[in-house]
Amino acid sequence: MNTAENIHTLSDAAPSLEGMVSLCAPAMADVNKVILEKMASDVPLIPELAGHLIAAGGKRMRPMLTLMGALAGIAEQNIPKNMPKDIPASALYLAASVEFIHNATLLHDDVIDQSEKRRGRDTANAMWGNEASVLVGDFLFARAFELMVSTGDIEILRMLSSASARITEGEVMQMSMAGAPDSSLEDYLSVITNKTAILFAAAAEAGARVGGASAPICSAMHAYGLALGRAFQICDDALDYGMDSDKMGKNSGDDFYDGKITMPVILAWQDGNAQEQDFWMRTLSQQDYQTGDLQTAHEILNRHRAVERALAHAKSEAEAAIAALTPLGQSEISSALISGARFAAKRAY
Amino acid sequence: MNTAENIHTLSDAAPSLEGMVSLCAPAMADVNKVILEKMASDVPLIPELAGHLIAAGGKRMRPMLTLMGALAGIAEQNIPKNMPKDIPASALYLAASVEFIHNATLLHDDVIDQSEKRRGRDTANAMWGNEASVLVGDFLFARAFELMVSTGDIEILRMLSSASARITEGEVMQMSMAGAPDSSLEDYLSVITNKTAILFAAAAEAGARVGGASAPICSAMHAYGLALGRAFQICDDALDYGMDSDKMGKNSGDDFYDGKITMPVILAWQDGNAQEQDFWMRTLSQQDYQTGDLQTAHEILNRHRAVERALAHAKSEAEAAIAALTPLGQSEISSALISGARFAAKRAY
Repeated sequence: MNTAENIHTLSDAAPSLEGMVSLCAPAMADVNKVILEKMASDVPLIPELAGHLIAAGGKRMRPMLTLMGALAGIAEQNIPKNMPKDIPASALYLAASVEFIHNATLLHDDVIDQSEKRRGRDTANAMWGNEASVLVGDFLFARAFELMVSTGDIEILRMLSSASARITEGEVMQMSMAGAPDSSLEDYLSVITNKTAILFAAAAEAGARVGGASAPICSAMHAYGLALGRAFQICDDALDYGMDSDKMGKNSGDDFYDGKITMPVILAWQDGNAQEQDFWMRTLSQQDYQTGDLQTAHEILNRHRAVERALAHAKSEAEAAIAALTPLGQSEISSALISGARFAAKRAY
Repeated sequence: MNTAENIHTLSDAAPSLEGMVSLCAPAMADVNKVILEKMASDVPLIPELAGHLIAAGGKRMRPMLTLMGALAGIAEQNIPKNMPKDIPASALYLAASVEFIHNATLLHDDVIDQSEKRRGRDTANAMWGNEASVLVGDFLFARAFELMVSTGDIEILRMLSSASARITEGEVMQMSMAGAPDSSLEDYLSVITNKTAILFAAAAEAGARVGGASAPICSAMHAYGLALGRAFQICDDALDYGMDSDKMGKNSGDDFYDGKITMPVILAWQDGNAQEQDFWMRTLSQQDYQTGDLQTAHEILNRHRAVERALAHAKSEAEAAIAALTPLGQSEISSALISGARFAAKRAY
């Protein structure tokens, strides 16, 4: 995609989430209150377990996208220079809702990946067991829908229930692809679109909608979220084979030992010789690992510049996200979103 | 509750689901079509796994309640003697939706109880593994919400999202009570109300609502479903210590070995002497089982008539369900619902 004519390429926004964090800060404090309030239950274990995960934080990307969408909608109806402050309550509920959906999937992922793969991490699953994690995940999912219902907007419910179904479709598809390094890039992109990008898109679009945005701004936020989500996931997957594993909060090599098929592996497989392909089959497919295999994997990936090429793909998705913002015009909001997109693929810049 | 003055006690409806099954049969065929259609996914494993569970059937109690609610609503607007035939499409979607919610919880229960406790049964979990069962459960849950959204009725979404949250609260509470035979009857009733009865109530009420029922009929269906759900669950739990285990589709003694606390155990504990209480603590709480323990459990329960008393409680819930039907008047519909309530606690009759 050629973004040379896009006004936003003129922006010198650095790759950072700071702009979004700063614009969202007042509302995010309220979102955190909603989260705490809606985690409440007469059954003490529920807020205890959910709180362990949700309080641990993370970047709060999805609720932030909802708030940014709402801000974009509000800005559209006001004098652009006058930064809007009043985010409607429904946007706060939606922001909490998408964070609940995300955390429900994390709880269930922890149950699924319970084997040695996440060693040393105090997951909810490790602390309270499978049963509690599955059930509290279900609880968060149900609460997410209660929060959406409180907006009274059936179109938003349609959007987010459909996104929820697609998340699980993406995860089942990812599971089916496990151990198959000959998977197509198309299938990989379908997996990450479903499991990650669709929720980013729905979060941003739903926020715009409750913020009173016009159809073009709603669509722009959807397209931005979709490309941003892909950039995030590709980058995340690429960096699992990268050097900055500490910053990712997970161990480098996790995906390798899980037999999870991500972009670097697919690229290396497609360009690989018979010996390299045998290596990927023995490890990823047959789960037969020997000392030094992770090192060998890195060597093969380096030979084909596979991580670098995946990060370039993430960068092009980030550029698509930025291009999608054209209808928003130049503002503090669009600058923050541009910085956010660059952050999503920051290692590529 | 004294139902002597209730017109429905005059009905001689036998304990059976046949009346409901027969009234619902044409619409249920359409519900099954919706179920098949909405299980579809581009990811083949999803319909395969979900189909394994859903096609296996079960009594389809929850969708049947939705259809009965819809019929009650339609009947209210027509000449009572002229049996209504046209159930609105939204009722079919709702019926499929509640069946999806129920099956999602079953898939997750199978993951949770994966140990020897369900030996010999080809659960989805045994056939496709934990990961697939957790994810397909999530998928069914998301699809259930998509189906609800298609009704366009926000009040129904409120009702069913709240019911879904309460199901998981009931299950977490049940988990927290495991191994504690000194739990109160009140806590047990709270567990079964949440995990079972609330969905029965919501299914019946939502059906009435889309069938165009008046507020009193909607409330009547809710109250009926709530009491019916409790009767069903109490009976189910009591019969796990009963003799007709074949008919229940699960092994007698499952709950005993799981340390699950149900009404018969609570009654026997409350009336038990120190030696009996020690027995319950060793088995249910400490999970220390010896040969003959299930036999001993049966003997203690018999001594206190605990199963019999639990079934009497189920019967009184069934009577409450029947009493709740007064606003419906006498009709083929109410007769079928009365038979259904008697069936729910049939062993007590």
